[in-house]
Amino acid sequence: MEILQTISTLLTQVREQTPLVHQITNYVTVNDCANITLALGGSPVMADDLQEVEEMVSLASSLVLNIGTLNSRTIYSMIRAGQKANTMGIPVILDPVGVGATQLRTDTAQQIIREVKLAIIRGNLSEIKTLAGLETVTRGVDAGEAVGSDAEELAYDLAQQLHTVIAITGATDIISDGVRSCRITNGHPMLARVTGTGCMTTALIGTYSGVTPDAYLAAIAGILSMGIAGENAYADAQTPGSFRVRIFDEIATLTPTVFQQRGKIYEG
Amino acid sequence: MEILQTISTLLTQVREQTPLVHQITNYVTVNDCANITLALGGSPVMADDLQEVEEMVSLASSLVLNIGTLNSRTIYSMIRAGQKANTMGIPVILDPVGVGATQLRTDTAQQIIREVKLAIIRGNLSEIKTLAGLETVTRGVDAGEAVGSDAEELAYDLAQQLHTVIAITGATDIISDGVRSCRITNGHPMLARVTGTGCMTTALIGTYSGVTPDAYLAAIAGILSMGIAGENAYADAQTPGSFRVRIFDEIATLTPTVFQQRGKIYEG
Amino acid sequence: MEILQTISTLLTQVREQTPLVHQITNYVTVNDCANITLALGGSPVMADDLQEVEEMVSLASSLVLNIGTLNSRTIYSMIRAGQKANTMGIPVILDPVGVGATQLRTDTAQQIIREVKLAIIRGNLSEIKTLAGLETVTRGVDAGEAVGSDAEELAYDLAQQLHTVIAITGATDIISDGVRSCRITNGHPMLARVTGTGCMTTALIGTYSGVTPDAYLAAIAGILSMGIAGENAYADAQTPGSFRVRIFDEIATLTPTVFQQRGKIYEG
Repeated sequence: MEILQTISTLLTQVREQTPLVHQITNYVTVNDCANITLALGGSPVMADDLQEVEEMVSLASSLVLNIGTLNSRTIYSMIRAGQKANTMGIPVILDPVGVGATQLRTDTAQQIIREVKLAIIRGNLSEIKTLAGLETVTRGVDAGEAVGSDAEELAYDLAQQLHTVIAITGATDIISDGVRSCRITNGHPMLARVTGTGCMTTALIGTYSGVTPDAYLAAIAGILSMGIAGENAYADAQTPGSFRVRIFDEIATLTPTVFQQRGKIYEG
Repeated sequence: MEILQTISTLLTQVREQTPLVHQITNYVTVNDCANITLALGGSPVMADDLQEVEEMVSLASSLVLNIGTLNSRTIYSMIRAGQKANTMGIPVILDPVGVGATQLRTDTAQQIIREVKLAIIRGNLSEIKTLAGLETVTRGVDAGEAVGSDAEELAYDLAQQLHTVIAITGATDIISDGVRSCRITNGHPMLARVTGTGCMTTALIGTYSGVTPDAYLAAIAGILSMGIAGENAYADAQTPGSFRVRIFDEIATLTPTVFQQRGKIYEG
Repeated sequence: MEILQTISTLLTQVREQTPLVHQITNYVTVNDCANITLALGGSPVMADDLQEVEEMVSLASSLVLNIGTLNSRTIYSMIRAGQKANTMGIPVILDPVGVGATQLRTDTAQQIIREVKLAIIRGNLSEIKTLAGLETVTRGVDAGEAVGSDAEELAYDLAQQLHTVIAITGATDIISDGVRSCRITNGHPMLARVTGTGCMTTALIGTYSGVTPDAYLAAIAGILSMGIAGENAYADAQTPGSFRVRIFDEIATLTPTVFQQRGKIYEG
C-alpha cells in the first residue's frame, strides 16, 4: 500500500534526524515516554517549569502535552509552551488523559484546545467523546468503551470541527484529519495490561511529528508502531512485566520492511 | 486452611470486578504501583491535584495514600481525598513511608490518622513503631529493624487504639485488626533489593480493598500476593533488574490454587 | 593497577556499609536512580520538600542534586539541603542535567555552585563546557558533543577553578580534581539509548561518596561501575528494553575482581 510506503519513510527519517521531542507529561509514565522516544530514534526532553518551557520548546521539533497528572503549576506551563510552539510552527500533540473523569481534566483539555492550535489529539473513545461533548462512560484513566462504527464518524466530525487530527485508539484505531480517515487493526489486548501504552503511543506520534508536517501521517505512524510492537512483544512474552520490557525492544527494532509487511491500515 | 480459601476468592473477585484504585503516591515508585495494580487485575488512577481528588475518589473502589515524596501540595490533597472517601464509605489505606525519619513525615502521618478514618496502615516495623510512639531505629525509607515477637503485640495494640488494621511487613509479616491477628512467612529477601516493593504491596492491598469490606482480609491478600510473587520471581531471576520484571509477571499469573498450596499464614 | 585496587575496595565498603544516599532529583529517572543505588549496595532516599530536606540529609552519607526536572519548589530544597550537608561534612554531588539548554538551568546550576560547596560535578561535555562559560552545542538533555582531547584540559581547569572534582562522561570519560586526572574508556554506545544512564551514574558516584572522603576516587568508581555494567549488559541484550533491565543486574553482580580485570583507567 502506498500509505505504508510513506509511513516507512518516516521511520527512516526519525532515525536519521533524531528529532527533539519536548514532553510536558505525567509523573506516572514519564520514564516510559522518554525511553520509547529514544527507542524509536528520537531525543526526549521533559522540562515543565513555567520559567523554561518556552525556551525549551524553541529547541524542539515537536511538543507533547499529556494531562495524566495535571496540576495548577503544569497546566500553565502546558498553555505557555503550546502557544510558543504555535508561534514557531512546531506541532503540538495533546493526550487528554482521563478527560471526563473530573471537571478539572475536562476544563483543562478544553482550555488547551481553545488557547493552543493542536496538530493531533490522541485518546481512547471515552476521552474523545468527552471532547466532542457526547455522553460517555468514563472510569478513571482507562478505556471505558470499545470502539464501534460510530467512532469513525466521531473522529471525522471532531477533526473538522477542531481543525486537528483526531486519533482514537482501542482494539481498532481510528484516525481522521477531517478529510482523510483510516482504521488500523494492529495491536494486542496485552497493551491494555501495561500502564502508559497510551501515553507512549502519543510520545511516538510526537516523535514522528518531528520529521513531517503531515500530522495525519505522523498519527498513523505512531499508532502503527505501537500496534506492531505490541504484537511482536506478545509473541515473545505473555506476561505484563516481560511484555513491557519487550515493547521497547520491539520499537527499537522496527524496520520499514516490517511496516510494509505487517501494517493493517484501511483507508477511507 | 479456611482463610486461604477466602483469600483465593478475593483474587477471583479482583479479576472479575476490576476495582478502580485511586492512589495519591510518591513519584519514585508510582509507575510500579500502577503496573502492579493492573497486573493483579485492578485499574489504577493516580490523580493528586486538590481540585480533582474528591471527584476522582468518588469514582473509585478504594483510596491509597502514600507519603513517600510528600509535599505541601499533596498533603492537603491526601487529607481532602481521604475525607471524601470516608463520607462515601470507600476504604482508605495509608502507607506511612519513612515516618520517623523527619518531623514532616511524622506530623503528616499523624494528621492523616487524626483527620481520616483509615481501613489499613501498612508499614515496616520502624514506621509502625513510630506511629505507636515507640523508640525505634529509622534510616531513610528502608526497613531499620527486623520483626520480632513483640511486633505481634504492637500490631494488636495499635489496631485496637486506632480502630484500623495494622500490617507490619518484613521477613515475617504481622497483620492485626485488634481482634484477629496472623503472621505470614512468604516472601524473599530479594524484595528488599528493589525499590517500591513496600509501596507495591500497599497498592495490592488497596486493590483487594476494592472488592471486600473486610480490611483484615484485604491486607492479608495483598501481602500474601507479594510474598508468593517474590518467591516465584526469585526462582526465575536472582538479580534485581530481572527479578523486578518478574514480580509483575508473577502477580499477573497468581491463581487461587497457588494461594492455597503455597500460602503460609499462621493465625491467632 | 593500584587505582583499580583502591576502587575495588570501595565496592566492598559500599556493600558492607550500605550508605544512605539522599537524592533530590528529577521525576523522569528517579526510580532508576533509587534502584541502581540499591543494586550497588547503597540505600536511597528521595525526599525533596523544603520542610524535611535538612533533617533527611542529616541522616545521609551523601547528597545528590540533579536538576533534570527542576522547578521553583525543588531549587530551594536543593540549596537548603546542600548547605546543610556542607555544615555536616556530607559530600554533595551535582548533576547539571541540560544546563545550557535554558537560562533557568544555567542560572540554577550557577546558583548551586555559588551557594553550595560541591564535592563532584558530573555532566556530559556540553554541560561542563556551559559551566565553564565556553561556547557549546546543547540540544535538550542529551549529549551534544563528543569528548575530544581538549576535554581533559577543561576538566582540569574547571576542577581547579571550582575546587571540586569534574567528571565528563561520554565515549571516553574524563575525571579531574585539579591535581589528579584520568580517562576511562569502559562503556558501550547503547548506554545513550536508555534514558537516565547519566543520572544513574551520578547516583552511583553518590553512593561511593558515602564510603570515602576522596571524591576523585568516588567519581572514578561510579563511572567505572556503569561502564563495565554497560559492557556486560550489552553482551547479554542488544535491544534497549532488555539492555536496561540488565544494567541493574550487572551493577548488582560487580565484583572487586571484575574491576581489576576489566577496568580501563589511564592516569595522568
